[in-house]
Amino acid sequence: MTAARTTETRTIDFTRGVPATESFPLEQVAECAAAAIGGPGGAQVLQYGKSTGFAPLREWLAARQGVGADQVLLGNGSLQIIEFIGLALLEPGDTVFVESPTYDRTLTLLRRHGARIVGIPMTPDGPDLAALEGALARQTPKFFYTIPDFQNPSGATAALPVRRRLAELAERHGFWILEDAPYRPLRYRGAQLPALFDLAPERTLQLSSFTKQIGPGVRVGSIVGDAAALARLAKAAEDTYITPNLVGEATVYEFCRRGWLEPQLDRLRALYGPRLAATAAALRAHLPEAAWIEPDGGFFLSVTLPEGVTCAALRARAAEGAGPQRRLRLLPRPGRRRPLPAPALLRAHPGADRRGRRAAGPRRRARGEWSVERGAWSEGATLCPTRLRSLRALRSALRA
Amino acid sequence: MTAARTTETRTIDFTRGVPATESFPLEQVAECAAAAIGGPGGAQVLQYGKSTGFAPLREWLAARQGVGADQVLLGNGSLQIIEFIGLALLEPGDTVFVESPTYDRTLTLLRRHGARIVGIPMTPDGPDLAALEGALARQTPKFFYTIPDFQNPSGATAALPVRRRLAELAERHGFWILEDAPYRPLRYRGAQLPALFDLAPERTLQLSSFTKQIGPGVRVGSIVGDAAALARLAKAAEDTYITPNLVGEATVYEFCRRGWLEPQLDRLRALYGPRLAATAAALRAHLPEAAWIEPDGGFFLSVTLPEGVTCAALRARAAEGAGPQRRLRLLPRPGRRRPLPAPALLRAHPGADRRGRRAAGPRRRARGEWSVERGAWSEGATLCPTRLRSLRALRSALRA
Repeated sequence: MTAARTTETRTIDFTRGVPATESFPLEQVAECAAAAIGGPGGAQVLQYGKSTGFAPLREWLAARQGVGADQVLLGNGSLQIIEFIGLALLEPGDTVFVESPTYDRTLTLLRRHGARIVGIPMTPDGPDLAALEGALARQTPKFFYTIPDFQNPSGATAALPVRRRLAELAERHGFWILEDAPYRPLRYRGAQLPALFDLAPERTLQLSSFTKQIGPGVRVGSIVGDAAALARLAKAAEDTYITPNLVGEATVYEFCRRGWLEPQLDRLRALYGPRLAATAAALRAHLPEAAWIEPDGGFFLSVTLPEGVTCAALRARAAEGAGPQRRLRLLPRPGRRRPLPAPALLRAHPGADRRGRRAAGPRRRARGEWSVERGAWSEGATLCPTRLRSLRALRSALRA
Repeated sequence: MTAARTTETRTIDFTRGVPATESFPLEQVAECAAAAIGGPGGAQVLQYGKSTGFAPLREWLAARQGVGADQVLLGNGSLQIIEFIGLALLEPGDTVFVESPTYDRTLTLLRRHGARIVGIPMTPDGPDLAALEGALARQTPKFFYTIPDFQNPSGATAALPVRRRLAELAERHGFWILEDAPYRPLRYRGAQLPALFDLAPERTLQLSSFTKQIGPGVRVGSIVGDAAALARLAKAAEDTYITPNLVGEATVYEFCRRGWLEPQLDRLRALYGPRLAATAAALRAHLPEAAWIEPDGGFFLSVTLPEGVTCAALRARAAEGAGPQRRLRLLPRPGRRRPLPAPALLRAHPGADRRGRRAAGPRRRARGEWSVERGAWSEGATLCPTRLRSLRALRSALRA
């Protein structure tokens, strides 16, 4: 048994923030869906409802956060709630601060609404406070979009002093903190830090989602914060889809009501933690030239390569050997020959990145940054050979 | 049994296009949800997927319509697909023709995207062709939004010659027909007419939804049409929510795959048909001064009152007696004293209407139009006394 384990090799799927398929509690969710629809409240689940979402789940989340139910709004995933923020709270030309780099889909939506985007560089301890204060000296943003826990894509976690300072600055300057916290329950090591919503509840709108906790297909995201601001989001939501998907929301509520969420989160931490450790160990062994922030949890890890590496060289080396499709997704778009300046990260989806890089401040600053995104790691201490070949290809490209 | 029936009275809920709660096949949907999530394809249902929607349901709808799967896109309700049309196909200032009056939520979204809205008056046989051709002589719209079957709110059904002419005009002038067909399966009398998509498949994008067929809470709408146009909607959808709610879509697919949709539609027609007949009979008996188009199906019926009736008088009369909340929803906003010009309809939600009336062409033309919307009718031949009092109040207001 022990001998078998040492030679066992499993696959790591490096993906774009996609949960591991084997993490889904399928039977439990099926049971919850049937109970939610077939039970005494079923008619309410199949009917139109308020655009704020399924009331019992709002109340459950509100009780957990210690806020009123009018301080919780549900949507079809948290990304769409960012869209409602754009519709309800942003005017074209409004300034929004983001971390640089940050979640590209948020940038897409901010651009849709004509925001002026200003990037605040990331450090291993969260956004660079000196840069943030410098930017605040020039202008006050409508809000600062931040992912304090296990950031997408850098993997960084904002340190407690950084969080406290962010809260102070938001209160002093009067901007909203838009705290995106989908990975927050997935901490694999260290102690949980207070959320920005805990530190500045009057100035923070906190996004979360059941995508990484149960599964994306239920399509249930949430936002917690100021009731008046949420009422404006609810109007945008009503105009857009009348009612969110109550079947998904009622299913998630049933799952939470039964006390199944915490055991599920325990399982996820036990599943993902060793995979992250294996990835970090492989990077240390096979890419010693690279630098990265080792995440304390979540889904994302970014690798920083030294100066002088060309995309073309990376791609060519990585394409050597088998299983091209997935490995190529780790690499920049073909035909881009310019050297990556240091620090340079490898991003999984260059398409989005390329567009972003041309459009807005944070992307320009993030020029040459690429991230290796991960959705899952192999269990055990070794990486699958295919993945190792990818890392070796990167390593040999570094030395080319 | 027969004697009991003649004295039995049941309630009609006049609502804003809300399906009758008793119409929901709760046990069947619960069983389908459990099978979809707990079955062999469950992991696919809980995972991220393409923004075009759950592939088996797309394929099922495509086969039914005789088109390719790339000609079907699913969304979280059909209204949100209209939002994607606004994002992907409309530029600010583009002209859109609509029927006057029409579904107010579509107008809200068209305005969100800066459309110039031109209203084409409704007749009992659908949009007024002379008015449409006059408008086309002045400009070609990006599209014409039409609800040919049991229109919201007029209840009118476009006659076959009108449909044929619309198809010809779209092809000749090169505009899209945006055919909204959520009520189409709910025909209570007469023969089904060809859809505009059948007559002009190259120029028509046909919206539908399972909201009126199964229930709003599953949040599954669809659009059928040109694959290239749908690919643009899919990009807008991906940017907005990545993936639609696959739990709802897979549940609906399971319902369809099992052959349960047609029997469900039979039940709905048997449920709603007599209610519409009862409403029409009550209108004939108690509001002979009013005129209306008697719908052949669907959810909507509009009452046209003669000239000289004031909103205040209507409201005052209707408020006499019991059960105010629901009855008042049938009446215009308090404090509006100006007489309703003839023809005048009673709309359920004056808030949306008031905004609309100020903003755009079709609303200005529809000045003074109000509709009585219905979601359900009492079974049997009599209306509930509360409802009758509403109608009597209208009648006595007419005579005031």
